[in-house]
This record gives sequence, structure tokens and C-alpha cells, in this order.
Amino acid sequence: MKNDVIRPIGVIRSELTSLDSAPRLGEEGAPDAFLEVVPEYQEGLDGMLVGDEMIVITWLHHARRDVLKVRPRRDPSNPLTGVFRTRSPHRPNPLGLHRVKVLEVRAGGIKIGPIEAIDQTPVVDIKPVAWLNDY
Amino acid sequence: MKNDVIRPIGVIRSELTSLDSAPRLGEEGAPDAFLEVVPEYQEGLDGMLVGDEMIVITWLHHARRDVLKVRPRRDPSNPLTGVFRTRSPHRPNPLGLHRVKVLEVRAGGIKIGPIEAIDQTPVVDIKPVAWLNDY
Repeated sequence: MKNDVIRPIGVIRSELTSLDSAPRLGEEGAPDAFLEVVPEYQEGLDGMLVGDEMIVITWLHHARRDVLKVRPRRDPSNPLTGVFRTRSPHRPNPLGLHRVKVLEVRAGGIKIGPIEAIDQTPVVDIKPVAWLNDY
Repeated sequence: MKNDVIRPIGVIRSELTSLDSAPRLGEEGAPDAFLEVVPEYQEGLDGMLVGDEMIVITWLHHARRDVLKVRPRRDPSNPLTGVFRTRSPHRPNPLGLHRVKVLEVRAGGIKIGPIEAIDQTPVVDIKPVAWLNDY
């Protein structure tokens, strides 16, 4: 088992510009955003429809990769917990999962929301959500 | 935006040993498996409980990364569709999302299921599932 290279397939364009202004969960007032897909991967959007529910996978490039325990939601009264049981951005591979709805399909990308990722967050994959509830 | 390095945090130990024997969706008879976490990241499991519902993120190392359109479920009657609207393992970053239940917490890892990933599939992250339905 070896390391591998992960490549951005796109980037988030959002009004959220700082980590401090970003809500920590989708339901806490996150805005809509534009997911700009890099030209060489735009064909991968073919068939995408307004109303589709998708999982957007981001690469939280500001996160620390050497953290293994955190206090969830940065609340000092919460016990130290392994990062794999939390949504902390700080984790060995700083992947973020964001459940969104497709609001518009345009040349160059898709408008999606709500999403708490900040402006310029790299996107590494997009997948349909339906199956997550299908078992 | 640049490429980055993704590191395995663990590996799937499963009775599924070939891509041909692997069911394509969790509900189609996938077995349980052991998720062995590499020693340096085992602390990240602290607090994990039997019964937890998690998303396991795999790196589908046998997949092709140069495919942008597929016929879903390999059915020739399905239209060619952008990979980002499908669960095809073939995609620019071959990430797999697997919703599982934690069945046992042991030294060295967790028993999980059901999961359709084959033996020796690298695991790159583990996250709680609850929030996915929370909006």
C-alpha cells in the first residue's frame, strides 16, 4: 500500500472567504456556491440535472494532517475523540463530504448548495447521494 | 490549486478477493470486513462504538483515472453518463464511499459491514454518517 496523488477536479467559488466565517455544519446557514470544474474534467458532468442530490468531496487544504484527536465542535467540555469519529477538518487526509443539491448546470460547472466550504476549496470528486440511504 | 499526496490510513480485509465477485452496491449481498488501521493512525479511532454508522472512504486502486463517461452499472442500454453522476470506480480520483455499521472495535481496527470493497482496498478516511441526513 503506497501513497498516491490526488488531483483537484474543480474548485469552490463562494462568498465564504475565511475559515472563521464558515459555519461548521450544512444546516447552520451555509450559502450556495459555484463548483467550477477544470476544463479537462467537464465531460464528467454530462447528464447532471437540476435537483440532483450529490456528495461533493473537497480537499480541506488549510487543515492539519498530524492531528489524531480533537474535542468535537471545538467545545472544551467535549472529550478528546479520535478524528475518525468526528467531522474535524484536521485528519490524515483532509477530505470533506458535503451533501448538496444541484441548483443550476452551466458551462464550466454547477451551482450547488448549501455548502459550508470556503472560497477556493479544491474539489476532488462528485458522486450521487441516493444510494447512501438505499440499504 | 495543485496536486497533493493521499496516504492510506488502513486497508480492507475481506473475503471478496476479485473485482468480478464484488457486488456493485452495498445492499446486494456485500459481506462484513475488517478495517485494519495502520499503527500510526490507530489513535484516530478513539471513541468509536459498536453500532456507530460511518462513511468509509476508500481509494479504488484498480480503477482507471482517465475515464470521464460510462454506461451506469455497465448496462449497454444505459446512456453514456459523466462519471460524476455515477458510482463508477473509474474517475479522476478513484474515491469510494461506503456506508457501514461498526460491528466490533478491536486492537488494530474495526469490524464493519456490509461493504462491497475487495480485500486489500486502501482506506483513506472514516467519518460519522449522522450529519448526512441532518438537513
